[in-house]
Amino acid sequence: MAERVRYGMVGGGPGSFIGDAHRKAIAIDGNAELVAGVFSRSPEKSKVTAELLHIDPERCYGSYQEMAEKESAREDGIEFVVVVTPNFSHYEICKAFIEAGINVACDKPVTISYDTAAELRELAAEKGVLFMVTYTYMGHVTSKFARDLIANGEIGEVRTVMAEYPQGWLAHEGDFGGKQGEWRCDPARSGGVNCLGDLGTHVENAAATFTGLKLKRVLARMDVVVPGRVLDDNDQVLVEYENGATGIYWTSQIAIGCDNSLRLRVYGSKGTILWFQENPEVLTLIDNDGNIKEIHRGYGAVTPGAAKYGRLPAGHTEGWLEAMGNLYRSFTECINAKKDGSFTADMVDYPTIEDGVEGLAFVEACLESNKNGNVWVEVKR
Amino acid sequence: MAERVRYGMVGGGPGSFIGDAHRKAIAIDGNAELVAGVFSRSPEKSKVTAELLHIDPERCYGSYQEMAEKESAREDGIEFVVVVTPNFSHYEICKAFIEAGINVACDKPVTISYDTAAELRELAAEKGVLFMVTYTYMGHVTSKFARDLIANGEIGEVRTVMAEYPQGWLAHEGDFGGKQGEWRCDPARSGGVNCLGDLGTHVENAAATFTGLKLKRVLARMDVVVPGRVLDDNDQVLVEYENGATGIYWTSQIAIGCDNSLRLRVYGSKGTILWFQENPEVLTLIDNDGNIKEIHRGYGAVTPGAAKYGRLPAGHTEGWLEAMGNLYRSFTECINAKKDGSFTADMVDYPTIEDGVEGLAFVEACLESNKNGNVWVEVKR
Amino acid sequence: MAERVRYGMVGGGPGSFIGDAHRKAIAIDGNAELVAGVFSRSPEKSKVTAELLHIDPERCYGSYQEMAEKESAREDGIEFVVVVTPNFSHYEICKAFIEAGINVACDKPVTISYDTAAELRELAAEKGVLFMVTYTYMGHVTSKFARDLIANGEIGEVRTVMAEYPQGWLAHEGDFGGKQGEWRCDPARSGGVNCLGDLGTHVENAAATFTGLKLKRVLARMDVVVPGRVLDDNDQVLVEYENGATGIYWTSQIAIGCDNSLRLRVYGSKGTILWFQENPEVLTLIDNDGNIKEIHRGYGAVTPGAAKYGRLPAGHTEGWLEAMGNLYRSFTECINAKKDGSFTADMVDYPTIEDGVEGLAFVEACLESNKNGNVWVEVKR
Amino acid sequence: MAERVRYGMVGGGPGSFIGDAHRKAIAIDGNAELVAGVFSRSPEKSKVTAELLHIDPERCYGSYQEMAEKESAREDGIEFVVVVTPNFSHYEICKAFIEAGINVACDKPVTISYDTAAELRELAAEKGVLFMVTYTYMGHVTSKFARDLIANGEIGEVRTVMAEYPQGWLAHEGDFGGKQGEWRCDPARSGGVNCLGDLGTHVENAAATFTGLKLKRVLARMDVVVPGRVLDDNDQVLVEYENGATGIYWTSQIAIGCDNSLRLRVYGSKGTILWFQENPEVLTLIDNDGNIKEIHRGYGAVTPGAAKYGRLPAGHTEGWLEAMGNLYRSFTECINAKKDGSFTADMVDYPTIEDGVEGLAFVEACLESNKNGNVWVEVKR
Repeated sequence: MAERVRYGMVGGGPGSFIGDAHRKAIAIDGNAELVAGVFSRSPEKSKVTAELLHIDPERCYGSYQEMAEKESAREDGIEFVVVVTPNFSHYEICKAFIEAGINVACDKPVTISYDTAAELRELAAEKGVLFMVTYTYMGHVTSKFARDLIANGEIGEVRTVMAEYPQGWLAHEGDFGGKQGEWRCDPARSGGVNCLGDLGTHVENAAATFTGLKLKRVLARMDVVVPGRVLDDNDQVLVEYENGATGIYWTSQIAIGCDNSLRLRVYGSKGTILWFQENPEVLTLIDNDGNIKEIHRGYGAVTPGAAKYGRLPAGHTEGWLEAMGNLYRSFTECINAKKDGSFTADMVDYPTIEDGVEGLAFVEACLESNKNGNVWVEVKR
Repeated sequence: MAERVRYGMVGGGPGSFIGDAHRKAIAIDGNAELVAGVFSRSPEKSKVTAELLHIDPERCYGSYQEMAEKESAREDGIEFVVVVTPNFSHYEICKAFIEAGINVACDKPVTISYDTAAELRELAAEKGVLFMVTYTYMGHVTSKFARDLIANGEIGEVRTVMAEYPQGWLAHEGDFGGKQGEWRCDPARSGGVNCLGDLGTHVENAAATFTGLKLKRVLARMDVVVPGRVLDDNDQVLVEYENGATGIYWTSQIAIGCDNSLRLRVYGSKGTILWFQENPEVLTLIDNDGNIKEIHRGYGAVTPGAAKYGRLPAGHTEGWLEAMGNLYRSFTECINAKKDGSFTADMVDYPTIEDGVEGLAFVEACLESNKNGNVWVEVKR
Repeated sequence: MAERVRYGMVGGGPGSFIGDAHRKAIAIDGNAELVAGVFSRSPEKSKVTAELLHIDPERCYGSYQEMAEKESAREDGIEFVVVVTPNFSHYEICKAFIEAGINVACDKPVTISYDTAAELRELAAEKGVLFMVTYTYMGHVTSKFARDLIANGEIGEVRTVMAEYPQGWLAHEGDFGGKQGEWRCDPARSGGVNCLGDLGTHVENAAATFTGLKLKRVLARMDVVVPGRVLDDNDQVLVEYENGATGIYWTSQIAIGCDNSLRLRVYGSKGTILWFQENPEVLTLIDNDGNIKEIHRGYGAVTPGAAKYGRLPAGHTEGWLEAMGNLYRSFTECINAKKDGSFTADMVDYPTIEDGVEGLAFVEACLESNKNGNVWVEVKR
Repeated sequence: MAERVRYGMVGGGPGSFIGDAHRKAIAIDGNAELVAGVFSRSPEKSKVTAELLHIDPERCYGSYQEMAEKESAREDGIEFVVVVTPNFSHYEICKAFIEAGINVACDKPVTISYDTAAELRELAAEKGVLFMVTYTYMGHVTSKFARDLIANGEIGEVRTVMAEYPQGWLAHEGDFGGKQGEWRCDPARSGGVNCLGDLGTHVENAAATFTGLKLKRVLARMDVVVPGRVLDDNDQVLVEYENGATGIYWTSQIAIGCDNSLRLRVYGSKGTILWFQENPEVLTLIDNDGNIKEIHRGYGAVTPGAAKYGRLPAGHTEGWLEAMGNLYRSFTECINAKKDGSFTADMVDYPTIEDGVEGLAFVEACLESNKNGNVWVEVKR
């Protein structure tokens, strides 16, 4: 059997939710094993994590630069790195690993500016490394099913999109949602954007993935609702796609009672697709006759390109970790294919740096629109 | 017992859905009886309807002018008129009855321009007639409950509103939805607006009723999506209220699978209210702790001002006709109170001409915003 | 136009929920008008109600016997009587009107014993009067749609039925649910049965109507759960139909949070039907492939025999009163057809005395099963 | 950090769904690592699986007897074995490992007869080994929450339970659901029971876990519905608990459209709990006032003893693998505690051999009841 793919991690130290989540997601299928890392800027904390994770102490590095250098020099060095640090540090870290010729999986948003993201895109192409951006929700079988249905013309031409991602965790005055909320709400560390950077990029990516449409322009209103906050916590965006279709994107951190309520409704000329990430085992397809069809993961109606990611029969619920595991499944398959020379571009079934760049282009266009009084702004490519 | 209130109708002839619906809604409680009418511009058709409805042939009139004149002259003349003609004719008809001193119940939107609506408002005040605009959905017990909860501060200060009313009946090319769709899509008869006039006014009124907030300004995009159509069939509106709260209103006639999917989600500083008109027996209240509470009509948690409109115990579903019946219940109570001198303004528990005017102000501001490239436009008073 | 059918009422005096509900339901379509009645055993109260209802005082009678006699003697006498008294009195009252040749609409259960119900059946046949038993829930468009789908073989042969009707209104010790709860829980006035008589007959009738199957035998456990109560308040019944299919019927008055939660799930060899009376605008049909299809009242997929009862377009919710109105619509159509000689048996689209008899047969078989230690008991015809 | 617990597996070879699922579930948290196994009765197939799983070839054994013997003799031998073979072989395999002093995790039902299960219970006690039976659904945070709420008296005294587990995968004639369906429907390999053994034990265990009640007696009807089948595929059971509460259990493999639709509704004297395993992130709690409260995993209302098993914040859905992982988390904690001497019985937070025995007692009582014409049968202890 193929050996497990070796990977390292930057970030994911004590108290980090997202680093632990990536490790768990990768562990489910066992296609990769963690062998190196810089888990914290504090060497002490990094060491503690490395020990807990049974990492060879030699491969617990003092800095990501050291890790990139030494791992790229080893015969048995890591084949990809997972970058799960706060957003503002993604750029430098990713750059270092790309330059070292190491494939990268980076949490979203990939950087905090369009220019840096685009630079990583060019660099990755130049160096020939694979670059995944972990828009986790797109790993669900039902997300891929929605994408396939629309691509297959099941709902005709897309006409309008209602996409939203409300949360409620920052609804209360004085509440900064702990460590994570802190840097998210800090302009210096977040690129001048909070809610729209975190949630808006998910919405943008989900709509783009489902519909296959490119954004042409946006008109955004980004509000700071909770007293005492500096950055946006409730965002309303009108969008227009290149084919003339339109959409409304709404993201919020003040919607009490909402968790990760990413919801897409795509209305086409021949039908409608409804999808809700908190009920990810189900896709609703409305045919031209208006009758509403609920299709469960595991059923025959699911397209093969989506169905193949299911691990369990219908009724055995799969969740968020499994969705992320699906991204890593395609990513490690591509890495293995690159090694044995069988890789082709159409094997890529995960969000790439291209998706990452589009996310930043979206955010920056929104920031400009908001600054200029909610006017239409073209989205860069 | 109080005699039944006598009423007449203009419109509601053969094939009219809405006139029949008003008659049925009024009949449920039996507080009023239909005694006069001009049911169609065709005297033939009008007569047929009058006969079916057991109306005295003498009181089946040739024109609304004649009806207003003769009924106001009778000892036993009608005490209110129900106006259920196409929108463009509301103004002249309502005006005639107000001038004759007869109370008016008019379907929404009350007219097709702000100026005419405002004129009716002034005239009604001058003549001292009661003027109801039948925003039916606001008659539901749960609508009134939502209004009371927010007024009582249950969800704190309103911060943002998500309100939408998608339908799918005009989604198909070449499909004008029969007679009704025809005039709705005809600029000459609709005031230059289709979807936003029909559905947007419902959304605007529902949001205003629930929150008690006044609109300050709007930014609207009104699209013509289905090829071959002239007027808007998909509308996206950003709104701002006078207290600084914001909202998104979406209306559509191209959302396949949607019926009358008027849905309101109101997010406050201490909680959230969710309401969906197609499931009108339920209101969802989310408290500050984020737990989601579903409250059914008929339960003790419902506020007295809302609960009193329930006719049946919980579990015996009430629907749209009952909601309209509730509007007429308050309207006829007020008419009776005026007769016996006990009427006070706070008895009014139905949408009035004031709501009607606000609807037109909203529509006109949207039209201007859309014409000028989706810019902010102040809403008149 | 056909004159309105004249009707009278026995029961439905001050404080009666069900009498008022029948009157409102009939009023919606206006096919019949109330002209006579005995609204209470107290002549005082009866008179008050008659006045409120604008009944000619002469036709407010002192007893049902007098009413049957005098109305049958009048040229313009009532054409049907609505019997909405407590269950134990149905038999005598219905008998009197049948003998007077007057059509009968009686609330369910039609009597409190199989023998009396069967006697009414024979008598009605002999006298040639129409006899409706108002199992209201079977008036919903979606109930009729379910019946049609199964009759058309859409789900193949019925294999098993899960039917239930839990309520919570009598869950609390010391709580007898007011006046209505009082007689329901009193053995002397209820035929020795409470919950199963009230709710079980609905379940039995709904299952029979949907599936078209006849009960062969039952095995029942009827429990008295709440301390201080004498009659059953939670009932569990295993059933077997003549074709060998099986079912579970559950009824309860102690299920906190349940209102009128009549729910049917019918599993066939080729599909499944799900129906819930508190969401009566929707029927769920699961095809052989397991995908779940939600069909709304008002859509083209609804069978013509069901669709014709809709008054309002899809999305304008219809409820319980409308369902009851549908029963009266067919009933009055049949009465009119009898008058003009066009009546045929296949016009009957409402529950009849035959359904009433089956209900009592079911209840008595359950009582015997429970008394004998939960053994199988054949159901009479 | 504590070393990972070493485990082996019997079963789980090529094409086995359940063995792979156990491995993935254990991998999520990484508390244990697979080091030995007999993955198939075919040595060839076993070897292939061992290689895929990176198992030392020496520790891929020819028989479970050999594995028990050799692993118990090693210094670094396995600390627990996972038994995921067809049900009929559980007894012999579990016995061998218990006798070798190795802790056991066995899939449910633990054996195919009460006597063998009880024997394992005694043997495990005697040998002092921990014995987990993997009733996966009880690993959900919301299952533990339901258990805690009821134990804390939140819904008062339990009065009646509605529990069901319908599936549709064996609804079609000639369809035996592949390899797994084959042995399930074969009397020789299934203990004379199919649906009730597979699904009924889940229902029984879930009801027992939630309510804490012991079964007193059952009355069962076990039907063979699909032509050509030998064993039960649709089962209806009335149950009575020792405290006098009652319940209905329904299991089916012919309910088209159902996946793993395990649903519990528990009605108490002060409230109600609703839980559905296909929506396992939510628990519904109905208070005495009848209002319906939906509580999400991750919220403050969840009891600490349940909340501690959550890995991800609310809104990041956890599913079936995570639920099974939760069982293994407690199991490995107990194993570690046994090693360091800190183990106490109240640490056990997973289903044990006692639950396994109760499952078989339930099945055997049902079989006897069904054989004797659906009569009450006492349940053994």
